[in-house]
Amino acid sequence: EISSSRLLDRVAGLGRVGALSGGGVCRLALTDTDRAGRDWLVAQMEALGLTVSIDAIGNIWGLRKGLVDGAPVMMGSHIDTVATGGLYDGALGVLAGLEVIAALNEAGITTHAPLAVAAFTNEEGARFAPDMMGSGVYTGALDREEMLATVATDGSAIFGEELDRIGYRGSDMPVTPAAYLELHIEQGPVLEREGIRIGAVTGVQGISWTEYTISGQSNHAGTTPMALRHDAGVVAAKIALAAHEIAADLGPPQVATVGVFELSPALVNVVPEKARLTVDLRNTDNDLLKQAEARLQSAAEEAASAHGCTIARRSLARFDPVAFAPQVIDRVEAAANARQLSVKRMPSGAGHDAQMFAPACPTAMTFVPSKDGLSHNINEHTEVQDLVAGAQVLLDVVLDLAGG
Amino acid sequence: EISSSRLLDRVAGLGRVGALSGGGVCRLALTDTDRAGRDWLVAQMEALGLTVSIDAIGNIWGLRKGLVDGAPVMMGSHIDTVATGGLYDGALGVLAGLEVIAALNEAGITTHAPLAVAAFTNEEGARFAPDMMGSGVYTGALDREEMLATVATDGSAIFGEELDRIGYRGSDMPVTPAAYLELHIEQGPVLEREGIRIGAVTGVQGISWTEYTISGQSNHAGTTPMALRHDAGVVAAKIALAAHEIAADLGPPQVATVGVFELSPALVNVVPEKARLTVDLRNTDNDLLKQAEARLQSAAEEAASAHGCTIARRSLARFDPVAFAPQVIDRVEAAANARQLSVKRMPSGAGHDAQMFAPACPTAMTFVPSKDGLSHNINEHTEVQDLVAGAQVLLDVVLDLAGG
Ligand SMILES: NC(=O)NCCC(=O)O
Ligand SMILES: NC(=O)NCCC(=O)O
Repeated sequence: EISSSRLLDRVAGLGRVGALSGGGVCRLALTDTDRAGRDWLVAQMEALGLTVSIDAIGNIWGLRKGLVDGAPVMMGSHIDTVATGGLYDGALGVLAGLEVIAALNEAGITTHAPLAVAAFTNEEGARFAPDMMGSGVYTGALDREEMLATVATDGSAIFGEELDRIGYRGSDMPVTPAAYLELHIEQGPVLEREGIRIGAVTGVQGISWTEYTISGQSNHAGTTPMALRHDAGVVAAKIALAAHEIAADLGPPQVATVGVFELSPALVNVVPEKARLTVDLRNTDNDLLKQAEARLQSAAEEAASAHGCTIARRSLARFDPVAFAPQVIDRVEAAANARQLSVKRMPSGAGHDAQMFAPACPTAMTFVPSKDGLSHNINEHTEVQDLVAGAQVLLDVVLDLAGG
Repeated sequence: EISSSRLLDRVAGLGRVGALSGGGVCRLALTDTDRAGRDWLVAQMEALGLTVSIDAIGNIWGLRKGLVDGAPVMMGSHIDTVATGGLYDGALGVLAGLEVIAALNEAGITTHAPLAVAAFTNEEGARFAPDMMGSGVYTGALDREEMLATVATDGSAIFGEELDRIGYRGSDMPVTPAAYLELHIEQGPVLEREGIRIGAVTGVQGISWTEYTISGQSNHAGTTPMALRHDAGVVAAKIALAAHEIAADLGPPQVATVGVFELSPALVNVVPEKARLTVDLRNTDNDLLKQAEARLQSAAEEAASAHGCTIARRSLARFDPVAFAPQVIDRVEAAANARQLSVKRMPSGAGHDAQMFAPACPTAMTFVPSKDGLSHNINEHTEVQDLVAGAQVLLDVVLDLAGG
């Protein structure tokens, strides 16, 4: 059985690493706080008797022997966060994995198949794009050398150099799991609104991240008639609003977010010469997502040409929608039912490491509710009984899959 | 007579201070490069025999005695630049003033009235708003203590502390000039397009700078349905486009510029919680300018309420349109005609130190053409013969007003 105090102790322990004064945490991938979180995690794994491995992209996993050798049943998620992150996004999946191990240790149970608990590098994509980088490299969906050469979104660092700097470039070879399970907070409002305790996640919607860089001409804000301007900022504002109109037009589940919007030289009385913005588009339907991308691109080209500016487009991430394994989804649902926890099948709006495992092995996820649907926000919160319920379902499904 | 080589030597000398590798200069107000420019200027003034004064806001002026005591005829402008500034914006007016003095020294002429050459602090408003700060304090239009307490637009410094740091907080008392004359590049396309050598400036259009700060709620870009968002960035984009629509709707001479646009936390997959943008609105007609401001404010309020965000409005600068003295404008025009230089009466689109003097003493400006109408751009350029023609007109009008 899951111990809520043991689970909460670990949540608090990791939560102190990168804690923000106003609440929440900032453990951006490959920063010093990420390193401190990793050091803490490795120590916890070793204390639980796990054999720790680190691969060439910095993924960390701990192995627990089974009665037989072979591929492990893996529980995983991530410990990196966005700049304004909460305590549970990612951390819960890793820490519940540790709690599953602790519970088995306490009960003296050795599963038939080996078990593993993993934390994947840079799931958030907040400092380096794309997201799900560690799990993508682990499963072969992303190219390792290309990822190691990635430049930070703000241009300030190179992925591989930062990995060396924090001392987490390992040499262990990834093992393909027998099955992959991830517990995560929903990060959205659905479970809370419907009063449901457990989400049996059916898949992940498609994700498309695009960066547009617009080049115009800087000029004087007072003397340059509107008709003679090449204002990169107006073009960027038009692209931003086009993204929102496309989402409104296609309707749910299409979403569109402009998270980054920068002007240069960024002075009150100078017409902007350069603008850079990112657009995050998502849809469960890949055809609709492609339609949204195409419409955005035409809107961008049209806006640029209307203002005599040029645009450059760069894809920062592109993941097709993913479906999880029906037999694992069924087990999540069954485990929740057996514990008298209300359960709902639902897609995930957020990207997760699990989606990188889906093509490689039987995979599914368990969601627990997020208060007010808030995430990527320091006020992200999940109630204790939901954290425990999620960990319990994880334990039950792991025992089911690994043979308890 | 003006010496083009002496004038160009000084242009090159000051142009080396803060020179950018790709061309142009960066001498933002009260930075170390501004200090270096000031040191250079003070040395030049002293070498020409001027008595240098520095006041409490850092304005620098050099006095040349006349045959009688009394208020000087002042030539002035500024030596601070925007981050991507050109060689002539501001600098020309100060350096042409020095050249007038050099020419009189060489010819052994002492004018009836005293002469002064002035460089005013922070005309650009690029690092600290409002613009025309030094001349505004000099003439009493802006409050000295309030200006000294101004925080940099990027929040990084306080005006008075920076002034102390560069050693240019003086204690000399401003003197009200008998007349004020400013030579400046047009910074716009009109003279070049019409093939005219000299602009006799009739006044300056009204300037309104507003900063909007929008507060929403950060949330996850993948899981938060569009309808549940409080996206500060969309509100900011709507305000930016509203500013442009207002300018299109009112038509010339109304202009609108969004030079600063920032999001926070500025991550690809996080709905922005905060946005900050600046809007620069200008019109020669104060009623139309007020109309533009009012329409912008309603658009901002409407956008904020549509997205469940709050907005805060801050005025960074507000100057009414200014008319120059007809008798001084006439003299500029007459001087150009006498030299067989084509001349045109025209308003100024940019703000200038001269507008702060207009209520205090007879004031006017002389414009020379800007290549391609470019300004606040490292490729800003004015042909040598135009620099010399402008300085010649300045000399002629000064002799006319001061009695040669
Ligand atoms: N779960 C999560 O927040 N992942 C980050 C990737 C994304 O969905 O933007
Ligand atoms: N002349 C000039 O560029 N002044 C700066 C103030 C303005 O924005 O007009």
